[in-house]
Parts: sequence; structure tokens; C-alpha cells
Amino acid sequence: MIAKTPTPPYYAVIFTSTRLDDDGIAYSKTANRMVELAETMDGFLGVESAREEVGITVSYWSSLAAIRNWKYQMEHVEARDNGREFWYKCFKTRICLVERDYGFEKM
Amino acid sequence: MIAKTPTPPYYAVIFTSTRLDDDGIAYSKTANRMVELAETMDGFLGVESAREEVGITVSYWSSLAAIRNWKYQMEHVEARDNGREFWYKCFKTRICLVERDYGFEKM
Repeated sequence: MIAKTPTPPYYAVIFTSTRLDDDGIAYSKTANRMVELAETMDGFLGVESAREEVGITVSYWSSLAAIRNWKYQMEHVEARDNGREFWYKCFKTRICLVERDYGFEKM
Repeated sequence: MIAKTPTPPYYAVIFTSTRLDDDGIAYSKTANRMVELAETMDGFLGVESAREEVGITVSYWSSLAAIRNWKYQMEHVEARDNGREFWYKCFKTRICLVERDYGFEKM
């Protein structure tokens, strides 16, 4: 699903990663849980995710404070630690101000 | 591949889309050509892409002027027109200023 975000400005966190080889069970369970949990956070605006050679998850937030609260949410900190230890070969996180957006929907 | 972008600030264009059903041949050919072409543009810094339920392509640029030059590159305009007419059910384009980034690579 394409996230239904409000009129800019708002923030985006682009998280790009490559995975280590494993069965993916614990990873998938945690990834799903993190989306569920993010949705409960103040200032959460939406999320988009896809994985092929790389995984890209973009989450949208109303402010830098909301991003920071999410970063330090306890269960998320634990998931991030597991990510570094068990799941990711590498990742990059980019904190962005969305200045402008436009879209298209086929009639 | 995770894009090797310079120290922020720089720009990101997040392009999220859902596809119409078709054989995907012309689409894939054009998508590959657009990456090849973007790489020749001044100010292009890198690109990351993945598709599952949604497709997410994030391209990175040195300036808004570079993004604008790419938007109006002739072959790209033609591809965008074909996208609206034949390939996409819907899409959203978000122009973002990357303010901060950090990464991790497993040793």
C-alpha cells in the first residue's frame, strides 16, 4: 500500500538494508511487530516496504521528535539490537524532510 | 545495493508505485534504461529499488536543480507518460531533503 500521508512538510525515514542468510522466521515476526507497534506511536503517518536484493522501508512521521520517540521505544531498541547482531549484513538510515509530493491514481 | 551517498545534506526522491497487470517486459526494459540514464545525469548520487506489493525506488541527488533536470530529461518524460498510460495503477513521488544519515556494516 502507498502511504496516505498529509500535505508536506513531514518527515520520512528511509531504511535500506541487506539481510544475512537465515530462515527469516524471527526477522519476519519482528518486522511485522515493529509495523504494528509504529502504528501506535504519536506522529506516525504511514509506512511502505518492499524487499528484493535490498529491503527498503520508508516510514513517515510528523516531526523529528516523533522519530526520536520511535527510535528509543523499548521494544524497538531491542529489535534494532537483534538486527545488528543477527539479521542485517548492512543498513543505512536516512532522516529526511519531505518538502513536496504529488501522485497519480488511474481512473 | 545500498547507495553510497555523500555526507548530508543531499536530496532523495521517493517514488512508490503499484503496477497494473501486464507482462512487464516493456516496463522492465524502460525501468532498467531509466537507471542507466539517471546515472549519466549531473548531480545523480545513487539509487535503491525493490518491489513486492508496492515498488519503492529512491534516487539520490545533489540538488533540487538536478532533480528538475532529470524530471524533464526527454527520454524520461516519455517514460513517465508511458507509466501513467500503461504501467502504473497509482504512484506517489516525494521530494525530500536528507538531513542526517547513519549506517552499519557487519564485520
